Amino acid sequence: MMNSNPYRECIEACLECMNACNYCYISNLKEYELAMLRDCIRMDRECAEICMFAADALSRESVFAAEICQLCAKVCMACAEECSKHEHEHCQQCAEACRRCADACLSMAA
Amino acid sequence: MMNSNPYRECIEACLECMNACNYCYISNLKEYELAMLRDCIRMDRECAEICMFAADALSRESVFAAEICQLCAKVCMACAEECSKHEHEHCQQCAEACRRCADACLSMAA
Amino acid sequence: MMNSNPYRECIEACLECMNACNYCYISNLKEYELAMLRDCIRMDRECAEICMFAADALSRESVFAAEICQLCAKVCMACAEECSKHEHEHCQQCAEACRRCADACLSMAA
Amino acid sequence: MMNSNPYRECIEACLECMNACNYCYISNLKEYELAMLRDCIRMDRECAEICMFAADALSRESVFAAEICQLCAKVCMACAEECSKHEHEHCQQCAEACRRCADACLSMAA
Repeated sequence: MMNSNPYRECIEACLECMNACNYCYISNLKEYELAMLRDCIRMDRECAEICMFAADALSRESVFAAEICQLCAKVCMACAEECSKHEHEHCQQCAEACRRCADACLSMAA
Repeated sequence: MMNSNPYRECIEACLECMNACNYCYISNLKEYELAMLRDCIRMDRECAEICMFAADALSRESVFAAEICQLCAKVCMACAEECSKHEHEHCQQCAEACRRCADACLSMAA
Repeated sequence: MMNSNPYRECIEACLECMNACNYCYISNLKEYELAMLRDCIRMDRECAEICMFAADALSRESVFAAEICQLCAKVCMACAEECSKHEHEHCQQCAEACRRCADACLSMAA
Repeated sequence: MMNSNPYRECIEACLECMNACNYCYISNLKEYELAMLRDCIRMDRECAEICMFAADALSRESVFAAEICQLCAKVCMACAEECSKHEHEHCQQCAEACRRCADACLSMAA
C-alpha cells in the first residue's frame, strides 16, 4: 500500500498541506478581521484542492504525475506567499506546509 | 494542523484506505486474469473517491462529517466484501484497509 | 454519452448547482459586508463539492448513486436555507439552484 | 450563474468530456475483450478526473485557470489518442469529446 508507493513522501507532503490549508481556511472564516483575509481564504481552497488531486493521482501512479506536481508546486508557492502576509498562527503554519509541499512536488517532478 | 483536528484518526484511516484502493486498482489492471476483477476495479475507484472526499470534508470540519462518514463506511464495507473474494495480496490488503476505515468512520458517525 | 445516461437530468441539476454555489462563493468573498456571510461561504463550498462528487458518481453509474444523491439533497437543502437568508442576487439564485438540485436528487434516490 | 461565467464554453466542454470518459470507462469494463482495454480504462479515469477538477476551478474563476486548462488539454489529448485506437463506439465518442475539450482548454489558456 502506502509503503510500496514510489511517491510516498510526496503524497504525505500533499496531504499535510491539504490539512494545513483546510485548517487555515476554516480558521480564517472565524477571524474577527475578515476583510483582509479574502485572498487567503480563496488561496487556501485552491491549494487544498490541488493537493488532494495530486495525492490521489500520485497514489494511483498517474502517468501525469510530474505535470500535476509541477502545477501543485506553483499553487503551493502562491498560497505560501499569501499566507505568509498574515500573522495568524494558522496562516504561518499553512505557509510552511505549502513550502514543504512545493519542495516535495518540485523534487518529484524533476 | 493535522494534530489539532478532532477527526485526525478518521482522516488517517480514510487516507490509508484511499491509498490501498488506488494501489489495488492499478494492480488489478496489471493482472493476467482481468475478467474476474471487473467489479473489483470499479469498487476500488468508488471507495478511493469517497475516502478522499471524506478526508477532505473531515479536515475542513464539515458540518456534514457524520453523514459523509456513514456513506464512506457503507462504500468501504462493500469494497472490503468485493476485495476479500480475490486472493491477490493487493486485494487482501485493500479489504483490510477498507474494514479499518469503515470502523473509524462508524465510530466517528456515532 | 450524456444523452444515454439514465441520470442525465439529475447530473445537470448537480452541475448547475455546483456552478451556482461556486459563483455565490466567489461573489460572497467580494462583498463589503463579509462577516455575515461566513456561514454562506462555507456552505457554498460544502454544496459545490458534494454536487461535483454526485455528478461524477452518477455519470459513472455508481452503485451508490441513491445514497450519494440522498446526501447531496441534504447538503443542498441546508445551503438553500443559508443562502435564502441573504438578499444578494447570487445568494437568491444559489438558493434556487440548490432547491432544484435537492428535488432532482430526491427523485433520483426514491 | 453558469451564464455569467466567463469560462462557460470551456466548462461545458470539460463536463461533456468527463461524461464521455466516465461512460467509456464503465463500458470498457463490460467489454468481452478486456485485456486490450487496460490503458484505455486508466486513461478514461485520468481524463474524467482532471476534467472535473478543471470545470470546478473554472466555475470558481480560479487564478490558476490557464495552467489547469493547459494540463487538462494535455490529458485530453493523451486520452483521445488512446481511445482512438479502439473501435468501440464509446471509445470513438470519447476520443471526440476529448479533442473538443482539449481545443476549448487550449483556447482558454491562450
